[in-house]
Amino acid sequence: MLKEAIFHTNDIPYLFSVSENEVKLRIRTKRDEIASCIVVHSDRYVAPGNGTALHLNKVASTVLHDYFETIIYTKVRRLRYQFLLTDLQGAQVWYGEYMVSESREAAGYFHCPNIANADDGSPPSWVKDAIVYQIFPERFNNGNQAINPSQTRSWTSNEPLEYCSFYGGDLQGIIEKLPYLHMLGVNVVYLNPVFESPTNHKYDTTDYYKIDPHFGDLNTMKELVRIAHSLQIRVVLDAVFNHAGDQSAEFQDVVAHGENSRYKDWFHIASFPIVQSPIPNYEAFGMNTPSMPKLNTRNPEVIEYLIAVAKYWIHEVGIDGWRLDVANEVDHAFWRRLRQEIKSIDRELLLVGEVMHRSGSWLRGDQFDGVMNYILRDVMVDFFAKQTITVRMFMDRVDEIRMEYTDYAQDAMFNLLGSHDTLRFLTACSKSVWGWHDKYEQSRMMLAVLFQFSYTGMPVIYYGDEVGMTGGEDPDCRKPMVWQESEQNKELFAYYQSLITVRKTNIALREGEYQRWFVNEAMNTWGIIRSHPQQTIGILFNNSPNVSPIEIAELNNINVKSIQQLFGSAKLCLENGTIVGELPPYSGTVITLY
Amino acid sequence: MLKEAIFHTNDIPYLFSVSENEVKLRIRTKRDEIASCIVVHSDRYVAPGNGTALHLNKVASTVLHDYFETIIYTKVRRLRYQFLLTDLQGAQVWYGEYMVSESREAAGYFHCPNIANADDGSPPSWVKDAIVYQIFPERFNNGNQAINPSQTRSWTSNEPLEYCSFYGGDLQGIIEKLPYLHMLGVNVVYLNPVFESPTNHKYDTTDYYKIDPHFGDLNTMKELVRIAHSLQIRVVLDAVFNHAGDQSAEFQDVVAHGENSRYKDWFHIASFPIVQSPIPNYEAFGMNTPSMPKLNTRNPEVIEYLIAVAKYWIHEVGIDGWRLDVANEVDHAFWRRLRQEIKSIDRELLLVGEVMHRSGSWLRGDQFDGVMNYILRDVMVDFFAKQTITVRMFMDRVDEIRMEYTDYAQDAMFNLLGSHDTLRFLTACSKSVWGWHDKYEQSRMMLAVLFQFSYTGMPVIYYGDEVGMTGGEDPDCRKPMVWQESEQNKELFAYYQSLITVRKTNIALREGEYQRWFVNEAMNTWGIIRSHPQQTIGILFNNSPNVSPIEIAELNNINVKSIQQLFGSAKLCLENGTIVGELPPYSGTVITLY
Repeated sequence: MLKEAIFHTNDIPYLFSVSENEVKLRIRTKRDEIASCIVVHSDRYVAPGNGTALHLNKVASTVLHDYFETIIYTKVRRLRYQFLLTDLQGAQVWYGEYMVSESREAAGYFHCPNIANADDGSPPSWVKDAIVYQIFPERFNNGNQAINPSQTRSWTSNEPLEYCSFYGGDLQGIIEKLPYLHMLGVNVVYLNPVFESPTNHKYDTTDYYKIDPHFGDLNTMKELVRIAHSLQIRVVLDAVFNHAGDQSAEFQDVVAHGENSRYKDWFHIASFPIVQSPIPNYEAFGMNTPSMPKLNTRNPEVIEYLIAVAKYWIHEVGIDGWRLDVANEVDHAFWRRLRQEIKSIDRELLLVGEVMHRSGSWLRGDQFDGVMNYILRDVMVDFFAKQTITVRMFMDRVDEIRMEYTDYAQDAMFNLLGSHDTLRFLTACSKSVWGWHDKYEQSRMMLAVLFQFSYTGMPVIYYGDEVGMTGGEDPDCRKPMVWQESEQNKELFAYYQSLITVRKTNIALREGEYQRWFVNEAMNTWGIIRSHPQQTIGILFNNSPNVSPIEIAELNNINVKSIQQLFGSAKLCLENGTIVGELPPYSGTVITLY
Repeated sequence: MLKEAIFHTNDIPYLFSVSENEVKLRIRTKRDEIASCIVVHSDRYVAPGNGTALHLNKVASTVLHDYFETIIYTKVRRLRYQFLLTDLQGAQVWYGEYMVSESREAAGYFHCPNIANADDGSPPSWVKDAIVYQIFPERFNNGNQAINPSQTRSWTSNEPLEYCSFYGGDLQGIIEKLPYLHMLGVNVVYLNPVFESPTNHKYDTTDYYKIDPHFGDLNTMKELVRIAHSLQIRVVLDAVFNHAGDQSAEFQDVVAHGENSRYKDWFHIASFPIVQSPIPNYEAFGMNTPSMPKLNTRNPEVIEYLIAVAKYWIHEVGIDGWRLDVANEVDHAFWRRLRQEIKSIDRELLLVGEVMHRSGSWLRGDQFDGVMNYILRDVMVDFFAKQTITVRMFMDRVDEIRMEYTDYAQDAMFNLLGSHDTLRFLTACSKSVWGWHDKYEQSRMMLAVLFQFSYTGMPVIYYGDEVGMTGGEDPDCRKPMVWQESEQNKELFAYYQSLITVRKTNIALREGEYQRWFVNEAMNTWGIIRSHPQQTIGILFNNSPNVSPIEIAELNNINVKSIQQLFGSAKLCLENGTIVGELPPYSGTVITLY
């Protein structure tokens, strides 16, 4: 047995509470090596040596490893436990805090002294039902011409998009389109920043307490939330707490008064007076963006100020959560404080961080509910759009990401295909980006969307993706929303709409346990299962340009008596306990298994 | 290369800040396989593909794995990085967030977006200089007969120790012996609980604001701290926040008023009225100890109450820190709050948790500085006392424990050989415990003490160990301190005293980097090095009953020109670049390498 591959620790994400009296254990082993994985556990206050044995199930496989999990119920909320692993040849080892060993005693025990110790990281109860729609407000819809910025372009202007152009999108415009979003089926809108700022993206906040006058005012925002809520649509705003805008009163006070400014410690300023070019003499976002001076989030005054901002919009307007910008560059301590404050208002408020890489240290239950799941997007781009990785590699990397996090963090992920910071997924599927071309660009996107809506976590639609908008990297991905019906891709819209309905009406797609079903590398087909006590659903995919035959005899111990197709154009039937049929090129299907 | 064994994550303890602009990286590989480990890093905001290469050094080896580390300086406080591993056969792999791969691109990158993100877990600056002495107050010294409990036994009574006996030890007794402790050389005293309680151990607090009247009063406590400080001895008290005593006003209020008590939510009570036997109908410490009702540390009132207690003794008396009892059974959130509050008074205040097992989730910089290092004690008992593991296994397990934690947590460990909750180490070394006997019991303890004082972290002496006290499991390990000089082991006392002086006067023993030097399994000898810019020290050990020859030619690239013996009776000399000589049975020596 490959002892070196075995890994567990009595900490997140290998140990986490799933209720007051239940804890989930996870263990990693070498791939395809373990025949049986057992945990022997007891109250850690009784004499060692005995305990209850429980089988763990294989729940994930990565390139190199398998992962096993089980849930242990403990009335006394504490455990002492050891693993007993048996490989395919029958060799056995014990694994505890001391080591992996043939000797049970030498292995030692792992300890879970108090499962309530695990931070209560449970996200809002509604995340499993969420279908999120991201809006870049300046480009979604112009509802009030009277507050257009100067030099506002025509919405349908043919001029090439520039980084600083204005098109006049505003909150009234969003309000007018809420029925559209309702019809599409989304139930959460996430808005990029809406607070006063000189730019179209508004990531350089001038006043955190004021809606940008080109977007509307406090009343428009209240109206937006009121009407959204009346349509059962939640509203999440974008909190830019890593940096302020250089036009903010606080930064301008430092510009004016230098060392004598009472705000001089709100930022990270190397010397006075303030210099903005060629390189700012203060810390600024990214590669020294002078308009975005970094806030000193260790300064208690700044902390109180930003926390008050976060609470204000909840209390005053009734928003349902915050997406936290550049969350990975702000201290953990600040986010912990924010979570305490926000969750003590209402545990149903959502906190999602922008972290574009591995995010475990923000997802320990003490900071964010979830993050923008960019690393999942990376895998989806490689597989569906670029077609550069095999189906097995795709499944492996998807599993690897999931195994980095607790279940509760996984449920609260913003699973996106693209955003205001990336090229659009449809464009990612096209030759202009990856150097080749075929007629299946849209099909590949649709297949990716099917996966997005079949997976755990919240599917997030970037505005316009649902009507076939294209666009390269920022700012090209921020084009004005296409509202002319003749320009909209109705097929794609119907696809999204139908898929949203399928997800909303089938609990297994929202809450079911995720597992692999089969992988056929030669055909580039695979299947996953979402199983829930009320329902078992299978989702089949064909990521190839061919019509691919399907023949699933191994039904993973699911006693399938009949199947019902919920979504997709595949032709499938059940013959003698085997699902047979075929999948069109780059397509998938959703079936219920009875 | 064994890819399955390779592990790193962009989180504690594999990534942590060591200064505002420096981050330490750690990576794990299969043991004895890697010829070269390199990290290629750059600012994560510049285009990928380039970067600076830096070699990592092997710093630890466990049964199965090697660990490599390096420190990266980054002006911009952010990194993108990949590892490049080369094995002894010359095979190479890249390792990043996506996977271990022969392809640099496929591997992906790890990200460290903001090193200040790592919690500022730095302990008090004084921990590296600390020599700690643990006192169980009821058994250390009776300085005021007037406040003896009723039925106080004679200090030197021959009656067998009982769990509930009283001997009259008190704070005045400790004050009187501060000069003794000063002479021994300790500079921190850690006192088991001193607050009002009906028991001798006082872990069932009646009043957190009152010194137990059999121990003294507020003034005695102030006097103790004042005199200790005048002798440069710090004082750490024991905070029992997991549970209160059943005689506390709050619990008695619930006993009296049941559901109508305003304290009913201070505890975890299943039903009213309160029942204490045969099994309490409320949560209690351990296996339902009725006198120790568990506090509800999620109740904001309880949180505020306990935080106020912790602050009161700091402000009122000037203590230097808290040891936190049963820390592993209290919510992380409570400890985070406590740390914020205590460290905002003074970062030089120490917080050490009682966690008897793997403690990573409490040592992320946001809760405790260190813990009672019981798992290190386990290894020392197995090796020095029980003699059941080989020297290689000893070194491996010591390294494994160190690699579980950051450097700053390691520095703040309470490294103990025994406590009020274990049998005494000298007894652990004797036949009565492990079934065999020889004349080297004391020598084995002395060897363990040498290791304790040569290692990183704070050595902790359990009262009386320094004069040869024996004792089995609790309560036998809590016998009255032996003050009759004729009964004291003077040799052991002198050994401790001398070793303390050596540690205090040699910076490398306190602050030097720890590394293995050599291991000779056949002879049961080994050496470690503590290297500091000002000084390099080697410590040699012989854990066998034989006189063992020493011959160290491999001087780990240390250009040794001469050696000077600082401690120990070994006969060593430097001959042609080789250290030769011999070590007496179960003995060690400390040498400076020039």
